Amino acid sequence: MKATIVTIGDEILIGQIVDTNSAFIAKALDKIGIETVEMLSISDKKDAILATLNALQNKVDVVVVTGGLGPTKDDITKKTFCDYFHDTLVQNDAVLEQVKRIIEGFYKRPITQINKEQALVPSKAKVLFNAVGTAPGMWMEQENTVFISLPGVPYEMKYLIENQVVPELIARFDRPFIIHKTILTYGIGESLLAEQIEVWEDNLPEFIRLAYLPSPGKVRLRLTARGTNKSILEAELKKQVHELDELIHEYIIGFDEDEVLEVVLGKLLTEQNKTLSTAESCTGGKIAATMTANAGASAYFLGSVVSYATATKTTILGVSEATIKKEGVVSESVAKAMAVGVQKLTGSDYSIATTGLAGPTAGEEEATIGSVFIAIATPKDVFCYEYNFGQPREKVINRAVNQALELLYKEILKK
Amino acid sequence: MKATIVTIGDEILIGQIVDTNSAFIAKALDKIGIETVEMLSISDKKDAILATLNALQNKVDVVVVTGGLGPTKDDITKKTFCDYFHDTLVQNDAVLEQVKRIIEGFYKRPITQINKEQALVPSKAKVLFNAVGTAPGMWMEQENTVFISLPGVPYEMKYLIENQVVPELIARFDRPFIIHKTILTYGIGESLLAEQIEVWEDNLPEFIRLAYLPSPGKVRLRLTARGTNKSILEAELKKQVHELDELIHEYIIGFDEDEVLEVVLGKLLTEQNKTLSTAESCTGGKIAATMTANAGASAYFLGSVVSYATATKTTILGVSEATIKKEGVVSESVAKAMAVGVQKLTGSDYSIATTGLAGPTAGEEEATIGSVFIAIATPKDVFCYEYNFGQPREKVINRAVNQALELLYKEILKK
Repeated sequence: MKATIVTIGDEILIGQIVDTNSAFIAKALDKIGIETVEMLSISDKKDAILATLNALQNKVDVVVVTGGLGPTKDDITKKTFCDYFHDTLVQNDAVLEQVKRIIEGFYKRPITQINKEQALVPSKAKVLFNAVGTAPGMWMEQENTVFISLPGVPYEMKYLIENQVVPELIARFDRPFIIHKTILTYGIGESLLAEQIEVWEDNLPEFIRLAYLPSPGKVRLRLTARGTNKSILEAELKKQVHELDELIHEYIIGFDEDEVLEVVLGKLLTEQNKTLSTAESCTGGKIAATMTANAGASAYFLGSVVSYATATKTTILGVSEATIKKEGVVSESVAKAMAVGVQKLTGSDYSIATTGLAGPTAGEEEATIGSVFIAIATPKDVFCYEYNFGQPREKVINRAVNQALELLYKEILKK
Repeated sequence: MKATIVTIGDEILIGQIVDTNSAFIAKALDKIGIETVEMLSISDKKDAILATLNALQNKVDVVVVTGGLGPTKDDITKKTFCDYFHDTLVQNDAVLEQVKRIIEGFYKRPITQINKEQALVPSKAKVLFNAVGTAPGMWMEQENTVFISLPGVPYEMKYLIENQVVPELIARFDRPFIIHKTILTYGIGESLLAEQIEVWEDNLPEFIRLAYLPSPGKVRLRLTARGTNKSILEAELKKQVHELDELIHEYIIGFDEDEVLEVVLGKLLTEQNKTLSTAESCTGGKIAATMTANAGASAYFLGSVVSYATATKTTILGVSEATIKKEGVVSESVAKAMAVGVQKLTGSDYSIATTGLAGPTAGEEEATIGSVFIAIATPKDVFCYEYNFGQPREKVINRAVNQALELLYKEILKK
């Protein structure tokens, strides 16, 4: 079972927006054993769409198209599908009802001609009902290929994939098994890691592939097993992961596919019944936002003081003005005082504090651009490390967030 | 001048990572008048890469490939380029020096065989020196197409695009002009907007295209003019934007290509010499993180209290326990008290407060999932609105952040 994902829209081709839909769709297809062999982003011009549909016909089993279903003149996917399938647009009453419900119920105004056109679909299409928006999904088959058209608005696309497309695909096709296992490592670079596991990697069976996914400070290893016998795949993956774990145990922090450090940390805090607070200067609240993006964060995350202005550090966190004057606001003493301050203020078991200079300009500080102090307060102690995360601003902030979570994670594990 | 951008890597095809490189590259090409006609994400298998290179040869002028240049076994781009161009790998001394500098200087360890292989490049390639990493870029020409290979690590790719690829392309090719103008609108839906500007849109000249880019609460309109005479394009775009401004003046909040609400708001606060603080419960620090992602935020952003736990709302922000008990923690009274509390605490002119239930579960609260109260405190007053942002959690948080910034923006503009 092979699929190609096609995104339609000039806004993608000029780089104005990043296509996040394709990754979501690929993940959903992958879970049900459908392999995405290619992703395409193409122009919303008729010729480009027709040429792409034509090239994919009989080449893959499933084509998932997103975009171009909106109500405006640059949305031509439906009309172009009609051209390609030699079909005409007809009104779908269920969709018309839904359009009315949304426009009249939610937006409190009568529907317009443009809204009504949302309810037109190719006569040969099976309509995939969109309960969260006005543009319906469409399922059309021709020869050996299923063509699925979805709106480009991410939450509408997600709704349709989960509630309509995946169930239809499961019902319609027999599929092989594809199983992934992700191993999340911290604190070792990609090339050193590759050398440490080289022999193991060379001895992986044919039906298992290994990929390295490096990002600042961490490397995810992904094993992919493909085959028709699920229990063989699972047994072999388990064995290989076990061997890998013996080789690089000290660097592994998790195994869950979606495991990211903040989720691992959240689980650990929950298990140990411990709480966390943060005092953030250069990270500007991003550590708090990262931790609270997890559902259930209220079990362990008490709060944060984003002390962006120097005065906020003294008035709310109780950092002494003398320390700031003597050591500078970007310093170990200030980071530690912030960590202890927020720990006291919130009564949390642990706290993280950051102070640094994210740049691009130095302002009044004497610190080097990219310099960040990260302090961790524990129930017994407070410690601090200094880093230089270079440039640009975005990288400094993101690396500081990652590093802070990693420091805390390792500290809690020590106990 | 036409280009295709190709991303190599199975991690993209299974949806494990979102490809952000292609958007960055497309934007850079677009700025110098090179039109991206297609983006492709393909597997890191040799056959897939060869088939793609072959299909693009002589079809477009420029092919930019990212990914597959790392030091590990799944990185096969260089070898596959050699196969395609009938070439062999040779050591590049400048690259080897750079690899040594990074590994020995930064990582403080001797270089390994795997590291040394980073310095191998196809003999026919022009090396694009990578000053920020170990994998060099490569520029190869065959018949009518330039093939450019770049590492997939975003900041290395960005460095090479800005410092090597764009200057080379400018030197090598004559290019037409492509000029975009983006109009950012708030507070009107896509279909209503389309109806209001329909006559104007129908009368746009042939060489100008309009695209609608909707996202929750806002629609960006993008005009694209293409041609050989830059001054004609600019004059006509100026005229059309002026006409559009007269039609929908009340909904327009900005014109800058990269203009986002937090940047517009930051400029406005700076101009008016006003300061901001936030008190965040359900948004968990994301408003603060969004505001401080902008360079120069310290001029107007004083700080934030992320009062995730109820106790933090009373102890730090001074929200009365009686109010919380009577009205519930997700309520207008609590939102207003939080806004006033953080305004006093930081001494800011304006403040934003959020309290809500992002879900997915209701916990102990009586509030509906998706329900969010946003309060704005001004120098004279405090007001609050209630919203329901539905589901899932991520959407609730993001819409609350957007809505809060929009409320503040409109409030400041009123003065």
